[in-house]
Amino acid sequence: TPLARFGSELRCQCISTHATFIPPSKIQDVTLTQSGPHCSNVEVIATLKDGRQICLDPTKNWVKVIIKAILKNAEDNI
Amino acid sequence: TPLARFGSELRCQCISTHATFIPPSKIQDVTLTQSGPHCSNVEVIATLKDGRQICLDPTKNWVKVIIKAILKNAEDNI
Repeated sequence: TPLARFGSELRCQCISTHATFIPPSKIQDVTLTQSGPHCSNVEVIATLKDGRQICLDPTKNWVKVIIKAILKNAEDNI
Repeated sequence: TPLARFGSELRCQCISTHATFIPPSKIQDVTLTQSGPHCSNVEVIATLKDGRQICLDPTKNWVKVIIKAILKNAEDNI
């Protein structure tokens, strides 16, 4: 599993990141967590509509595309 | 309170959104939730480093600036 939870996020949550593109339509939510004393990496965790949680690499372009697509949906909702 | 939780996100989580800019340095994490059957709005909820959770308006430019700043931190970490 690419995701490990230890108590209340006292460590990094992601052991590995998903390698291939996931369509934004399959994603329920995305959490971006700042680096800090608990973890030296910025971590991006997506919850898919089927309930699975996966770690994404925030430096990958397709991950930014997903985040932009969600924000774009917000504009279109107005 | 601008944030309401009803069970496992069966409804919108945000009643109102924070009006003014929050420095990215005060933010621990940001969750973007797609609209769907549970809620017709895209919702953005930030957890501040002091533990407070606040709703942000995803159509506001400064909210996008915060999200870009977190992603930028990821690039700088490499």
